[in-house]
Amino acid sequence: MSKEITSRAIDYSQWYNDLVIKGELADYSAVRGCMVIKPYGFALWENMRDALDKMFKDTGHVNAYFPLFVPKSLFEAEEKNAEGFAKECAIVTHYRLKADPDNKGKLMVDPEAKLEEELVIRPTSEAIIWNTYKGWIQSYRDLPLLINQWANVVRWEMRTRLFLRTAEFLWQEGHTAHATKQEAIEETEKMLHVYADFVENWMAVPVIKGVKSPNERFAGAEDTYCIEALMQDGKALQAGTSHFLGQNFAKAFDVKFSDKENKLEYVWATSWGVSTRLIGALVMAHSDDQGLILPPRIAPHQVVIVPIYKGDEQKALIDTKAYEIIKELKALGIRVKYDDNDNNRPGWKFAEYEMKGVPVRLALGARDLEKDVVEIARRDTKEKRVVPLEGIAQYVQNLLAEIQVYMFEKAKIYRDEHITSADSWEEFVKLLDEKGGFISAHWDGTPETEEAIKDKTKATIRCIPLENTQEQGKCILTGNPSTQRVLFARAY
Amino acid sequence: MSKEITSRAIDYSQWYNDLVIKGELADYSAVRGCMVIKPYGFALWENMRDALDKMFKDTGHVNAYFPLFVPKSLFEAEEKNAEGFAKECAIVTHYRLKADPDNKGKLMVDPEAKLEEELVIRPTSEAIIWNTYKGWIQSYRDLPLLINQWANVVRWEMRTRLFLRTAEFLWQEGHTAHATKQEAIEETEKMLHVYADFVENWMAVPVIKGVKSPNERFAGAEDTYCIEALMQDGKALQAGTSHFLGQNFAKAFDVKFSDKENKLEYVWATSWGVSTRLIGALVMAHSDDQGLILPPRIAPHQVVIVPIYKGDEQKALIDTKAYEIIKELKALGIRVKYDDNDNNRPGWKFAEYEMKGVPVRLALGARDLEKDVVEIARRDTKEKRVVPLEGIAQYVQNLLAEIQVYMFEKAKIYRDEHITSADSWEEFVKLLDEKGGFISAHWDGTPETEEAIKDKTKATIRCIPLENTQEQGKCILTGNPSTQRVLFARAY
Repeated sequence: MSKEITSRAIDYSQWYNDLVIKGELADYSAVRGCMVIKPYGFALWENMRDALDKMFKDTGHVNAYFPLFVPKSLFEAEEKNAEGFAKECAIVTHYRLKADPDNKGKLMVDPEAKLEEELVIRPTSEAIIWNTYKGWIQSYRDLPLLINQWANVVRWEMRTRLFLRTAEFLWQEGHTAHATKQEAIEETEKMLHVYADFVENWMAVPVIKGVKSPNERFAGAEDTYCIEALMQDGKALQAGTSHFLGQNFAKAFDVKFSDKENKLEYVWATSWGVSTRLIGALVMAHSDDQGLILPPRIAPHQVVIVPIYKGDEQKALIDTKAYEIIKELKALGIRVKYDDNDNNRPGWKFAEYEMKGVPVRLALGARDLEKDVVEIARRDTKEKRVVPLEGIAQYVQNLLAEIQVYMFEKAKIYRDEHITSADSWEEFVKLLDEKGGFISAHWDGTPETEEAIKDKTKATIRCIPLENTQEQGKCILTGNPSTQRVLFARAY
Repeated sequence: MSKEITSRAIDYSQWYNDLVIKGELADYSAVRGCMVIKPYGFALWENMRDALDKMFKDTGHVNAYFPLFVPKSLFEAEEKNAEGFAKECAIVTHYRLKADPDNKGKLMVDPEAKLEEELVIRPTSEAIIWNTYKGWIQSYRDLPLLINQWANVVRWEMRTRLFLRTAEFLWQEGHTAHATKQEAIEETEKMLHVYADFVENWMAVPVIKGVKSPNERFAGAEDTYCIEALMQDGKALQAGTSHFLGQNFAKAFDVKFSDKENKLEYVWATSWGVSTRLIGALVMAHSDDQGLILPPRIAPHQVVIVPIYKGDEQKALIDTKAYEIIKELKALGIRVKYDDNDNNRPGWKFAEYEMKGVPVRLALGARDLEKDVVEIARRDTKEKRVVPLEGIAQYVQNLLAEIQVYMFEKAKIYRDEHITSADSWEEFVKLLDEKGGFISAHWDGTPETEEAIKDKTKATIRCIPLENTQEQGKCILTGNPSTQRVLFARAY
């Protein structure tokens, strides 16, 4: 009857795919590495996007839209950025198809419609945007420029996974321009805090804020700040990044401004982004073997009402009551779905909404109505209670708030239990293999050591936490002196 | 001081470009035929998108997201559709760049990273979506499927114009699947009415609803419904289309469902879309030689407040009052901007917001404050009045509603004056050349005649209006018998 999900214990990776597919968040497509975001998954993304968008606007940013295409000559202007993305670029070389003379009804690329200059499909938009900013920035009066764009980007990944790593994905990318280094660094940090606020308070996923090691920096950045989350299998997931770009792009695209003393200076830059990848993080941070568990603040449906009845007479009574409840819930701004579809039985519906992670379910039966009560079930704890219909909307509103907090606390306890210190290589490897999670260990600060640790264990430095404690120690691998512990983990 | 705009009378086309660029709606980009939508233009688009999105959801539709890429083999499956778009497709042929050995620091397309099958960048998404629907539709219980997507699409146009015709543009495309022909036709018509409602009541642009002649039909459609608007130069602009696709895509992608009698049937389809082109229509329908005129319901700022003061003391008093007014306006849901930027003088600001088409301007001066009054200016009529500060928020709210109605009525009077009947070829040509607008004339119903009229005059059949009067007549060109008049115009 209900859809089968592989359990986490048996195959974590298959469990994840089952949730995404059977929870109707996304589907595979006919295009290699690209997914279809299904209506339920897209409604979730819309809620996430709208919340983030408001946070961006509240911090003074405006939206705009820049071209999908980046001419190759612009793409290669900032060399490190170009080098970082060159291997995963989709390239447009032609602008026309024509009838294939050898294949009736088929088309072929028209060789006469070859572009003079190839176009890269944006894997990120620094190049096209900074080329545009050049025309918009003359004086300090034009700064800061605080622009965000919601867009699709393409990175030709060889191994793809729904939401976590797809050739095309949806994201937002903020691109700001500033008169001073200090202001740009403040912006970079501000947006990191906005991301952390969103992921913790809307997605109920605790994160660690930190700075990337040089190996893990965004191509073209001076510094990459990140938020790192922990999944239930003990692997970390980078949930968002905010980059201080220095003057690299301003120099590559010759973007200068005249300051108050009329001196020409290069502009300082930041960029920051989160993507549909966050949905993967959300799924893996909270869900269980029965399906998705979505936090109330972003769940497409916060409440589902399932009527339980025999015959039209009972149905009519329940309908009346249900519409009353729906009206009350909507008045409180609660997103509620009434599923009185006759094709499916209540048990099937219960399993379906468990699968889809709807935070609260009301089962409204004829006998309950007589007693003026309703059965209310929490998706996260699976707790069921029978409560009075009187005041039900307020009860539900409180419960949703409680679930939101509880989900975050639960994830935070798990996360905190999975930050472990290691003081020897043996301990480090054992923790990685047996416990997982973040491992706090000394590192000698060299890219070579980081690379060697990655080669041996597949663990990378997830971040150097903000306001990290400074302490003397010895590098976990080389024994060389170290001044601080950093967080290692295997990661998505 | 203020930015110069070419007047309509001197060069209508340049006037339009000036408005778009100097009104800061969009900018040219480094990519041939692609534009940058600037923050002010994007805020306008967001208001349009949000209003439309709500209308789609209120009529039962949900959003989803499908891949940007269409494999060539899918693209060519529906032959008429493929033929219609083949000549304007951007094609991805490679997925990697590499260092160019002959050109230090430069990149080249890696010939070893050639795709086995080329990918078309979606010019429209019927192919990729119907290929996906095949997996989603088995039974009548899966129908109707009412899905919309907001996306970027690419059509490689040779002659582009900001908003009106760009290689990449933003749009929404609805793609619905139905069990019966009747239901699909009803959906097609329903969405046409939604579009007309939006364009008339939000954009304040009157439209004529009709059906396209076969020559002007969407490639792959059985019937194309459209709304046609009239611009101030007498040219028509197709503002939205809604297509009844019959079973063409279901057959091309083999999408069948089992009906209630368990019989397998092909699914019936519709698709419908509007794009950022609407912004072009908005600009050309309302604006004047001083700049944009935006209707209040979608204007990014509905009200701008400009303080007029000398010295900090006056400024402080005005600030206090301004924040009071802003609070009252915001409480009524009115979008207000307070421009107290010290870098520009009031006169510059007046010209700037006139250029940007902000519907209402309040000039708040120290002497006004003493008398408890404020000067209020309408952008559309340029009328100025001094009104009491007492009750100003309510006054503004009423005025915004009045402007919205007035703009529509004004545009409708112009439009109605520019629907003219022609009963001879001479009259027809004279009207086209001297008056412009829609010309209602008899047509013998053949594609050949339509083509001939187009060749001779550049006028096309914009539509056959819904519920068109049937009357005997003679074709304007051939003299052959005709049963109805249709609307001709030169068009964007």
